[in-house]
Amino acid sequence: MADVNGLGVVTTHQVELFTPERPLTMAGGANLAFVTVAYETYGELNAAKDNAVIVCHALTGDAHAAGWHDGDKHPGWWNTLIGPGKAIDTNRWFVISPNLLGGCQGTTGPSSVNPATGHVYGLDFPLLQVRDFVTVHRALLEHLGISRLHAAVGGSLGGMQVLQWALDFPDQLDQAVIIAASAGLTAQNIAFSAVGREAIMLDENFLGGRFAEQGRNPDIGLAVARMMAHITYLSEDAFTEKFGRAPQGEASDPGFGVDFAVESYLRHQGETFVSRFDALTYLYLSRVMDYFDPFGGDAAPPPLSLWGPKFLVISFDSDWRFATEHSLRIVEQLAARGAGVSFRQIHSPWGHDSFLLDVPEYLATIRAFVEEPAKVSAARALRPDLRRIAAQVPRGSRVLDLGCGEGELLRHLMTRQGCVVTGVERDGAAMLEAIKAGVPVLGLDLDTQLDEFADGSFDFVILSRTLQAVMQPAEVLRQMSRIGNHLIVSMPNFAYWPHRLRLLSGDMPRSSDLPYRWYDTPNLHYATLASLEALFDSLGLVTQKRFALSPSGHIIGAGANWRASSAIYLLASRRLAGA
Amino acid sequence: MADVNGLGVVTTHQVELFTPERPLTMAGGANLAFVTVAYETYGELNAAKDNAVIVCHALTGDAHAAGWHDGDKHPGWWNTLIGPGKAIDTNRWFVISPNLLGGCQGTTGPSSVNPATGHVYGLDFPLLQVRDFVTVHRALLEHLGISRLHAAVGGSLGGMQVLQWALDFPDQLDQAVIIAASAGLTAQNIAFSAVGREAIMLDENFLGGRFAEQGRNPDIGLAVARMMAHITYLSEDAFTEKFGRAPQGEASDPGFGVDFAVESYLRHQGETFVSRFDALTYLYLSRVMDYFDPFGGDAAPPPLSLWGPKFLVISFDSDWRFATEHSLRIVEQLAARGAGVSFRQIHSPWGHDSFLLDVPEYLATIRAFVEEPAKVSAARALRPDLRRIAAQVPRGSRVLDLGCGEGELLRHLMTRQGCVVTGVERDGAAMLEAIKAGVPVLGLDLDTQLDEFADGSFDFVILSRTLQAVMQPAEVLRQMSRIGNHLIVSMPNFAYWPHRLRLLSGDMPRSSDLPYRWYDTPNLHYATLASLEALFDSLGLVTQKRFALSPSGHIIGAGANWRASSAIYLLASRRLAGA
Repeated sequence: MADVNGLGVVTTHQVELFTPERPLTMAGGANLAFVTVAYETYGELNAAKDNAVIVCHALTGDAHAAGWHDGDKHPGWWNTLIGPGKAIDTNRWFVISPNLLGGCQGTTGPSSVNPATGHVYGLDFPLLQVRDFVTVHRALLEHLGISRLHAAVGGSLGGMQVLQWALDFPDQLDQAVIIAASAGLTAQNIAFSAVGREAIMLDENFLGGRFAEQGRNPDIGLAVARMMAHITYLSEDAFTEKFGRAPQGEASDPGFGVDFAVESYLRHQGETFVSRFDALTYLYLSRVMDYFDPFGGDAAPPPLSLWGPKFLVISFDSDWRFATEHSLRIVEQLAARGAGVSFRQIHSPWGHDSFLLDVPEYLATIRAFVEEPAKVSAARALRPDLRRIAAQVPRGSRVLDLGCGEGELLRHLMTRQGCVVTGVERDGAAMLEAIKAGVPVLGLDLDTQLDEFADGSFDFVILSRTLQAVMQPAEVLRQMSRIGNHLIVSMPNFAYWPHRLRLLSGDMPRSSDLPYRWYDTPNLHYATLASLEALFDSLGLVTQKRFALSPSGHIIGAGANWRASSAIYLLASRRLAGA
Repeated sequence: MADVNGLGVVTTHQVELFTPERPLTMAGGANLAFVTVAYETYGELNAAKDNAVIVCHALTGDAHAAGWHDGDKHPGWWNTLIGPGKAIDTNRWFVISPNLLGGCQGTTGPSSVNPATGHVYGLDFPLLQVRDFVTVHRALLEHLGISRLHAAVGGSLGGMQVLQWALDFPDQLDQAVIIAASAGLTAQNIAFSAVGREAIMLDENFLGGRFAEQGRNPDIGLAVARMMAHITYLSEDAFTEKFGRAPQGEASDPGFGVDFAVESYLRHQGETFVSRFDALTYLYLSRVMDYFDPFGGDAAPPPLSLWGPKFLVISFDSDWRFATEHSLRIVEQLAARGAGVSFRQIHSPWGHDSFLLDVPEYLATIRAFVEEPAKVSAARALRPDLRRIAAQVPRGSRVLDLGCGEGELLRHLMTRQGCVVTGVERDGAAMLEAIKAGVPVLGLDLDTQLDEFADGSFDFVILSRTLQAVMQPAEVLRQMSRIGNHLIVSMPNFAYWPHRLRLLSGDMPRSSDLPYRWYDTPNLHYATLASLEALFDSLGLVTQKRFALSPSGHIIGAGANWRASSAIYLLASRRLAGA
């Protein structure tokens, strides 16, 4: 195989992090006297020791995330992401990849021999929590002499670990990247895992977990569990694309064997899995996921400090193992704790496994986030209408900008006016620019997803030149007045007199503010200033200021409904305005 | 339990339909010398024997579709649908419900004893095809003295059987109702079944299918298969609604047992299933579904006669076992064969199992279809604009009406002008009226689903007062000119002079043709006649006739772009128009 990522041959290290003298105290209360951890590293730790990035693997991963192993030459599972010049660039970052506690690839787990007894732990191994992974990996950092991480990055179960780390030790991370993860499995998620565990534990060779001592292995149960889980890792379209209804090999008598290519693939998945993975680890790590619920129950974590990590949450639109709703819940909960969060749903046909694959938009998003924010030239001037909007926002305000584009306004409010900002933007290229500029930006739909924001969670909600492009303008305004104390709305004026002249000529209006043809416009609703103001009134919104603007951005006094090409409104709900 | 459907206690009959003298010749070529079929009937066969309806069960169903059994009093699996006054009204219809060939509830199957050998068939039972079910059930009808069915109705595997029956014997059915079915499983569908079969066949008690002779049973494998399959029968939301993350029973030590309510439910599903179902039947019937592919391969069936059955195809929006795409493929293939098809996606949160549940819109749709079309009063007059459209359509044309409403125009074209018609309508209440009127109507979205129609498959495609409400008017017109040879388009005129006066007054236009306020209108795009005609021209559409109409429907001559409130266009593509 080609050395596709340029890291070449890498080595897995092992280190004993906990000993009888310094045992691991687990979140559930048990102690483990012996804990060895397998890990790999890529790139070089710099002298300041501030370029470390930890990557956290998923249910069946291991320490070998990148590069190649000598001997069997098998490639790391995250070579798409990690390497020289990759999204996590090992020319710049020192990447650490450990195998999880409970694992079966060099780190202590339930199939390890307990040195105290000389026997395999089996089901006597204590039940794990995601917190235990964090404890062990913090000990690994200590061993490596690293006190603070530039970033923690993880997919699926790995993303859960990153989330737990950020919640418990927010000052230890600059950035937390949580991909295709969940902060609370659904009943369906648990159901799939439960059936897999049933298959393993009902296997005649499971023997109550003591199979290793008898030289046996619950291969059938483990293979069935893996085959079933594997169905959930791919999207239905991915299965169709890969296999369709193709028969397996030569035509033969139909029966109950491997007739279809997809059956051959699944059987292969099951067979190879039992040769590399341990049934007890499967039970333990899948159960950790079932119980993970950091935002549930009574023991809600304390608010994150504003100096805690910046978050990037990523989902994939075809992922049905942990669909986008799981990521949105994480975003909501983090935002409610005051964290700066960017979120993007990536289009990918491959389902949950997308986080392991070469999906360019996904990798570009991580790259944009993990890199330091670009230094924005101090001289860069804001557009006149945005300058006018910024002037309405007091220093230190919490600001939500709906349709924030590349985040120019928010970057300005953040750096010049000390505001705590969040943008909403659906255009991918614009989002990447906003993320590069260090602006937290959420890829949400204005028509359907404003419910994500809590009541009164912002001082100002801004909607600039966007109202005419949404499906339900009244509903968007209603949501804005629910979310924010003040609203700033700007909109082109459909009654601007050149529009009228054109309509009088029998054709549909077009101008520099309304440049589209009637049948391909993204602008779905037109309003004159008068009809817009009537809508504000019907929603209980009081106009506190109005700036009617000429096309060059100058204020227009009298005759605005006729002469302004656009207008900016500062609004407050009648209740708050005291009207 | 209450006798909820009024049928009371019913009895399962058994009849020997094939014997060594008259064996069953199967689609795969094998002969079965002994075939007994279990069936139930509800209601009375009338003297003309023309009120018979057959219902076809799904993978794990049986003959007991409705009413109650004495003794154990368990209710029929389709009591929601069948009974006095129900959607399939036993006061009117004589309903027949047989257990499938290969089943394990009274009909001959692989766990039956082969009378010729005295041994259970086991895996020596011939592989089944959906056609074999049809052959056996046609023999049952013959036994009952019934030559023709008013309707065949089936869900999931039962729907596949109805489809096969309609394709092979179109003259035997007036109506075919195909619910939550598929005409070709996807790789993911097959994958789920394959893993279930692996679990069964790898069970140590399967013994190559000879378990019954040894007094053993592959309970573990069958339970695992059932648990897994059951996950696919419910939507994720249904699991969340039923169980969420609730723990099972009293709080106890977490571990690998039944900790969550959903785990208890699944284990119960597995345990009760093994007591009522046979592992061999599970293998045989699931494999039938994998192979079912009536529209694939080289042996495409001949076109349906125009006198063949009318079809109703139903899907559920939360069904991910056989998602709506499966039903749409059936609709496309039937339409391409000239069949009259109605299709509706029903909103239901419950997933695939919805076809067994009390979902009012679903039951109302079946009722509307199965009832005879209402006699429409001959005197009922068409709206003036529709009368004008109808006058443009020659007798016997194939007509597609996009946004057909209650189907008035199509009903007129069908009954008065001998046209072969199809409507498209999203509004549920309007669809039901169209179905009751005997008009085939498809519940498709004009903006995203016109790809369902083949090139040149209609003589006329009509879009009446709907263009302004679609998202992409140009794309809809492009699709129309692809689908049809002639287009008829009617649209309100945005340049109508009262609109202009209102805009000159500084407010947004409203009139009887444009009655909405700007921010809550379903009308997303406005056009003047001039700008509409410019769009036609850019799409290569030639106006063959134009009727500019006043609000009362009278033709306007000069000054139409100013004076008409709406217009009707008869269009042809430049190629077809010879221009």
